[in-house]
Amino acid sequence: MKESSRPIGVAVLGMGNVGTEVVRILTEKAADLQARIGAPLELRGVAVRDLSKERKGVDRALLTDDPMALVQRDDVDLVVELLGGIKPARKLILAALEGGKSVVTANKALMAEHSGELSKAAEDHRVDLYFEAAVAGAIPVIRPLTQSLAGDSVNRVAGIVNGTTNFILSEMAESGAGYGKVLAEAGRLGYAEADPTADVEGYDAASKAAILASIAFHSRVTASEVHREGITGISAKDFDAAKKFDCTIKLLAICERIDVDGEQKISARVYPALVPLDHPLATVNGAFNAVAVEAENAGRLMFYGQGAGGAPTASAVLGDLVMAARNRVFHGRGPLESTYAGLPVASIDEVPTRYYVSMKVADVAGVLHQVSGEFAKRGISIAAVRQEGAGDDARLIVVTHRASDRAQSDTVAALEKMDSVLKVSSVLRLEGTND
Amino acid sequence: MKESSRPIGVAVLGMGNVGTEVVRILTEKAADLQARIGAPLELRGVAVRDLSKERKGVDRALLTDDPMALVQRDDVDLVVELLGGIKPARKLILAALEGGKSVVTANKALMAEHSGELSKAAEDHRVDLYFEAAVAGAIPVIRPLTQSLAGDSVNRVAGIVNGTTNFILSEMAESGAGYGKVLAEAGRLGYAEADPTADVEGYDAASKAAILASIAFHSRVTASEVHREGITGISAKDFDAAKKFDCTIKLLAICERIDVDGEQKISARVYPALVPLDHPLATVNGAFNAVAVEAENAGRLMFYGQGAGGAPTASAVLGDLVMAARNRVFHGRGPLESTYAGLPVASIDEVPTRYYVSMKVADVAGVLHQVSGEFAKRGISIAAVRQEGAGDDARLIVVTHRASDRAQSDTVAALEKMDSVLKVSSVLRLEGTND
Repeated sequence: MKESSRPIGVAVLGMGNVGTEVVRILTEKAADLQARIGAPLELRGVAVRDLSKERKGVDRALLTDDPMALVQRDDVDLVVELLGGIKPARKLILAALEGGKSVVTANKALMAEHSGELSKAAEDHRVDLYFEAAVAGAIPVIRPLTQSLAGDSVNRVAGIVNGTTNFILSEMAESGAGYGKVLAEAGRLGYAEADPTADVEGYDAASKAAILASIAFHSRVTASEVHREGITGISAKDFDAAKKFDCTIKLLAICERIDVDGEQKISARVYPALVPLDHPLATVNGAFNAVAVEAENAGRLMFYGQGAGGAPTASAVLGDLVMAARNRVFHGRGPLESTYAGLPVASIDEVPTRYYVSMKVADVAGVLHQVSGEFAKRGISIAAVRQEGAGDDARLIVVTHRASDRAQSDTVAALEKMDSVLKVSSVLRLEGTND
Repeated sequence: MKESSRPIGVAVLGMGNVGTEVVRILTEKAADLQARIGAPLELRGVAVRDLSKERKGVDRALLTDDPMALVQRDDVDLVVELLGGIKPARKLILAALEGGKSVVTANKALMAEHSGELSKAAEDHRVDLYFEAAVAGAIPVIRPLTQSLAGDSVNRVAGIVNGTTNFILSEMAESGAGYGKVLAEAGRLGYAEADPTADVEGYDAASKAAILASIAFHSRVTASEVHREGITGISAKDFDAAKKFDCTIKLLAICERIDVDGEQKISARVYPALVPLDHPLATVNGAFNAVAVEAENAGRLMFYGQGAGGAPTASAVLGDLVMAARNRVFHGRGPLESTYAGLPVASIDEVPTRYYVSMKVADVAGVLHQVSGEFAKRGISIAAVRQEGAGDDARLIVVTHRASDRAQSDTVAALEKMDSVLKVSSVLRLEGTND
């Protein structure tokens, strides 16, 4: 064991679930962390919103409600940002980086919108900006993509990256209950927040998709460029129908390299999709996350684990913290942002997708003929059809082969205008198939 | 994009499956690699055993049969060692490191036996020694363990890390065929070598277990310290019996932190084990690999992908090569070997295991009473019993709860001496259960 270097001062911003665990591990595992880093980590302060609130496991004297003053202290070398959101996290991180302090953040919304600015500040001031915890909690995804696959060409990243929606969809699949009932249950169990919008409307997953697409394709993709659909429209009937096609329904974040008329583009999209039951992502249930990667040489990889929660997310934060601290001791630096490829983001219209369309139809002869005509007109080939029920309950379900999403959605729009189609009750995409 | 630094010279030692793919990717993806590194990689030479052999995709002028001269060339900055085995790989790598050149190797046998010496040389000469490709091919395992989990405490790593044996066992499970027949088929299909000893006797997996245990527990474990049993004794009957317990059979490499009379020790072991069908590792079939990690805070993680083959292994090599090259450009360095914990390796006798014991027994009353007595005598509780057949074909199968492997194996030895036990036909351990 080498002689240890001078202590490294750490500031933690935010003491929610993750912050509390980070402080706990910093305290309990101090000796191990010191041995791994080559210098002791010393907690200089923890910024909290409410100083009067009871906090366990931390010396009251370390608490402050002035995060900017904490970040700017001379004896702070590393800043851990766990506030979430853009304000004031962005300013605090910029101040840290500009002050020559490396930053570890779990802030997906911020990284999905401002990674360019933040990475530039890190580069200009020769410090690290690590954000493994921003995507898929404890599961190492950022580091494998930026480092392990640094010599490969990633073609696709598809993942279940939001635990709340995966819990809801898994419960719906298993219990047969409807969305509203399961959402309420998720709230009671602590899997869904009081305002679940960010999760159930796919905003959280879209931020993660933006981060994954950026690093996988060495380009810059922001959350607003990610096509996003939530799960609020998914019904128990959709799960019944999915089962008939040997599928389940998952909210997927998909980042793909696609060819649009000879030009390479990135597709980044989040939507609930039918996934075949024998696909590895179909078996990822509850609050678990998984990310599947397809690379030219590595082939198919999958990473699986806990995507949220205090301790798992703290594990990812601590991993980054140890690497940033080691870089400080050994004068090294982590990988910089890599956006050299500069690939444009494709519109969802340009993306080849498969559709599942469920409609209430008039119980008369020739409906299938008319419906299939609308698909054929736009060059879309049909993979499977089911006709169910009769009379007022007659339903027609169509699953297509791959075609541009524009052609698919145009067809759905046309179907909605047909007299014999009483109602298009559900439209979902089908993912995880090769054809 | 920054101005590019001076070219980085690369030497490749060995041009088998992996070397050929590494050379191909270096050539085909030169522009991408340059953009990611900040400097071009230039192939200075490829060392081969037989200069007269036809080689595709490489300029003949680059070939040499003098690897040491190539390693020591002034214009070689990075050395990729793909020869395998100890000699001459060890000397070549040492010469490279001592010459201030970073090394990327896929050599598990070497890393499992000499990582201490090699890591010290890398540290002394301030260069990198990367070996992601040595374990589980394309699957990022080394980097997640050494970096992503650097702030966590790993309790267990259990993996399927040998494609040949997993192909054989998967085929046996599916087809019901015997070991010999399936081994021959694996040979024909290129999944098993002409001399399959290293794979089927578990030597390859033991090397990987040693590497995984070393990095997971910040200690030094060599291959010879890994308890090792191969798959040559596994029969179709074992698979039949496994199915009756809702299990399959997998060759596992297990690295565990265990408590032996209050002392923390490492258990590193390789053996074929019964694995419950609903365990994630049970579904890893064919030549695929998977590694499951349990850490204190991260919880359960799993990494899955192609564990062998030219292109997948080359992907891991290239990832390391890009990181080593970037460190050269930016004067950084990768993580050093971390063995500060210095945990001792436990004997297999000390490890708590569960046993599955299948025996031919005399078809008389009271056999179960006698057999269960031998387990009870050593404090081993029985989880399940099956009595099958009758007369000459009477069989008794016992599955135990956890107890020290010594108590379990002593019991088996005692059973073998019993008159009513005609033959202990199969002994396997059961893994992947919580009780």
